[in-house]
Amino acid sequence: MPTSEIKESDKIYKIINARLLIEHEIVENAYLWFQNGKIIHPQNLFFSARRDADEIIDAKGLLVVPGFIDTQINGSYGIDFADYEEPVEVLQKNIDKVAKGLLQYGCTAFCPTVVSSAAEVYQKVLPLLNHRKGSATGGAEILGAHVEGPFISVLKKGAHKQAVFKDAKNGIKDFDEVYGPELLKGNKAVSIITMAPEIDGVCDAIPDLVARGITISMGHSACRIAEAEEAVTKGANSITHLFNAMQAFHHRDPGLIGVLGACDLPIPETSVGHPAPSSTSPDRKRPDPRPFYGLICDGVHVHPNSIRMAYYSHPTGAVLVTDTLSAAGLPSGIYQLGGSEVEVVEDGAAYIKGTTTLAGSTITIVQCIRNFRKFTNCPLVEAIEAATLHPARLLGIEDRKGTLNVGGDADLVFLDDTNGDIAVKRVFVAGEEVKL
Amino acid sequence: MPTSEIKESDKIYKIINARLLIEHEIVENAYLWFQNGKIIHPQNLFFSARRDADEIIDAKGLLVVPGFIDTQINGSYGIDFADYEEPVEVLQKNIDKVAKGLLQYGCTAFCPTVVSSAAEVYQKVLPLLNHRKGSATGGAEILGAHVEGPFISVLKKGAHKQAVFKDAKNGIKDFDEVYGPELLKGNKAVSIITMAPEIDGVCDAIPDLVARGITISMGHSACRIAEAEEAVTKGANSITHLFNAMQAFHHRDPGLIGVLGACDLPIPETSVGHPAPSSTSPDRKRPDPRPFYGLICDGVHVHPNSIRMAYYSHPTGAVLVTDTLSAAGLPSGIYQLGGSEVEVVEDGAAYIKGTTTLAGSTITIVQCIRNFRKFTNCPLVEAIEAATLHPARLLGIEDRKGTLNVGGDADLVFLDDTNGDIAVKRVFVAGEEVKL
Ligand SMILES: [Zn+2]
Ligand SMILES: [Zn+2]
Repeated sequence: MPTSEIKESDKIYKIINARLLIEHEIVENAYLWFQNGKIIHPQNLFFSARRDADEIIDAKGLLVVPGFIDTQINGSYGIDFADYEEPVEVLQKNIDKVAKGLLQYGCTAFCPTVVSSAAEVYQKVLPLLNHRKGSATGGAEILGAHVEGPFISVLKKGAHKQAVFKDAKNGIKDFDEVYGPELLKGNKAVSIITMAPEIDGVCDAIPDLVARGITISMGHSACRIAEAEEAVTKGANSITHLFNAMQAFHHRDPGLIGVLGACDLPIPETSVGHPAPSSTSPDRKRPDPRPFYGLICDGVHVHPNSIRMAYYSHPTGAVLVTDTLSAAGLPSGIYQLGGSEVEVVEDGAAYIKGTTTLAGSTITIVQCIRNFRKFTNCPLVEAIEAATLHPARLLGIEDRKGTLNVGGDADLVFLDDTNGDIAVKRVFVAGEEVKL
Repeated sequence: MPTSEIKESDKIYKIINARLLIEHEIVENAYLWFQNGKIIHPQNLFFSARRDADEIIDAKGLLVVPGFIDTQINGSYGIDFADYEEPVEVLQKNIDKVAKGLLQYGCTAFCPTVVSSAAEVYQKVLPLLNHRKGSATGGAEILGAHVEGPFISVLKKGAHKQAVFKDAKNGIKDFDEVYGPELLKGNKAVSIITMAPEIDGVCDAIPDLVARGITISMGHSACRIAEAEEAVTKGANSITHLFNAMQAFHHRDPGLIGVLGACDLPIPETSVGHPAPSSTSPDRKRPDPRPFYGLICDGVHVHPNSIRMAYYSHPTGAVLVTDTLSAAGLPSGIYQLGGSEVEVVEDGAAYIKGTTTLAGSTITIVQCIRNFRKFTNCPLVEAIEAATLHPARLLGIEDRKGTLNVGGDADLVFLDDTNGDIAVKRVFVAGEEVKL
């Protein structure tokens, strides 16, 4: 049938002249096919419908990689996902604005992040942050909220408001009470909970939360190594912004950071939710039992040498996050973050006003990839995987995100990687091209 | 000529039925030849003297590896190398006793270590700690002294006596003044100086000290990462007991520990005094610019997870040290270390009496190898190299120590490595077998 009669959504697209990131390698001069927002296998087409592509997309030699996934974004453009005082319609518009703004940097899916808040805040904002498909006009896919706190430590509170902190003496009941009925939807509503393993009851609640499909990340914690290892054994598979808001690495108790050196954790049977094996894994053939770890690669939150040590200790666990706050995309000045005054200074770092406590970054995910590569001297493929494959595995969604494999979402970033740098040239989300 | 007419020292020995550690691999059923205390090439014999071996040593399938090298030993058997009040003859006898005692653990060469002391102490004891060949009756080879301090930080003094600490405002003059004329002999007398890079004048004196063949190790230091990197650029190639007596790893300034993640150090032209390249090196083909680092693998000084992180960040830089003090080889109780009272408790750790400050270990080097392997899950070969090849490279003596290469000293350890453990079965030093 002639192309004109095909519904837009059924059109078959074929990318030519691309260099594709497939199975940890860059494949030169390759093709990629997609239809209905999903990457498809051309073989199936020939046998079933005997069709060729309806539209050809010439990548002109650019590097085509999966869309970037950011699991920690507090806001941008003056918007903070933890602000809840406006009417729901305004909050919804704010979320849309951030979701759209992210696309230009190649970020096609994200976890809107809510800092420690009172129950009434969660119960108003979480319903707005449920899983939602991405589109070129609607913005990046929402993967469900990342709730950072309130089950965290006053000793490592960072920019969080201590007044709302909680313990979990009653187990998952306490979680349901504060986050509200949304939590019963599991990762449709809440994809990640950042919690401190040493807070009363937190460790014991992990299996129940994991059973709902929620990713458990350890952070804002003064825990000792034994407590962190216990949390991992119970199902925690992530560390939130490694090095920030946790104990410094003490020689006799390396604390949460020390989990990167853990050698005695039980080796997972399945790869779901676990880092791939590397040469540093306890078992070099099976998935790594150590958690993923978020890294804020803005050059301010974490020293480049620390990034490098973490990466070489556990290369397949690195997950790049921006941890951007409302000030991202805005000039220097004073802004609101979860009720605190935050000052953005010229180099793009944000501090609690009048202190040296960091309160989030204003960096973009593509700049994180650049920095990570520079700090670690790692291959470009590994830097990109830290913003694609690794976060997808962390969330257990690598069947549809984080790779260019058949069946996955056609979230694509076209990168110009000449001159040893990377620049975002074209972006597709769910198969739709974004106007940059 | 018949065997009986050959001088003992000219005898040619051939080890058969051995598994040899050669070039990072275990070679099965191999031979090793030595004569006059040196490993020789059999080919040369056949062509020159047309001789076969005078004596056959049947290794019976044991693993034959280079003798272990320990670059940090304060003493044992109630003896402390920093004690100087006895007559010289007594001190000499004490040194001999320690040197002999080490052989049973496979330690065939060592750096007797002197904690921070006054000039009069150094000037009495250093002449006794000059380089001295090893022998089965005389003991392990002395590689020259390791002077730990007194150019170190009061903030990280550990068990050292602050009263004798010094700065180096006058450069190498200050070093010559405190250590005395022995320092002019370079590494014949002083093989390693542990110093804190942030102490006034220390960094600038490094090139002069390196020119004398002395190894510069950073330790007992509260330095920031930039100061440590400067010291490395000036010629420091080691960190003393990594993790102990230095700043905890802070996210915004990882301090001395952070040098393990350094990415911008100038890449060395030659491999002398530098770790071999590894998959984590800034340049994977050329020697690694990062320093070696001593590790006390007694399970008390450093948490196993920290050992593992260090190893995976920089595998070819690991150097196992015992850091034993006078209490090694003695039962629990109170002992002297450099004028302080030190308490040895049941698990073999030693503390400044009445405190939780660690003051050295009572472990053996072979136990360090076992622990290192267990903590890191590394191959046996790599664990052994951390006590052989790596310390030899650190000291710039790998042409004669730390391998089984032709031309090297016939310092040999026969290990039974069945059952996944290692046990020292036979020891040779300079070609002489030690009575165990
Ligand atoms: Zn945080
Ligand atoms: Zn020390």
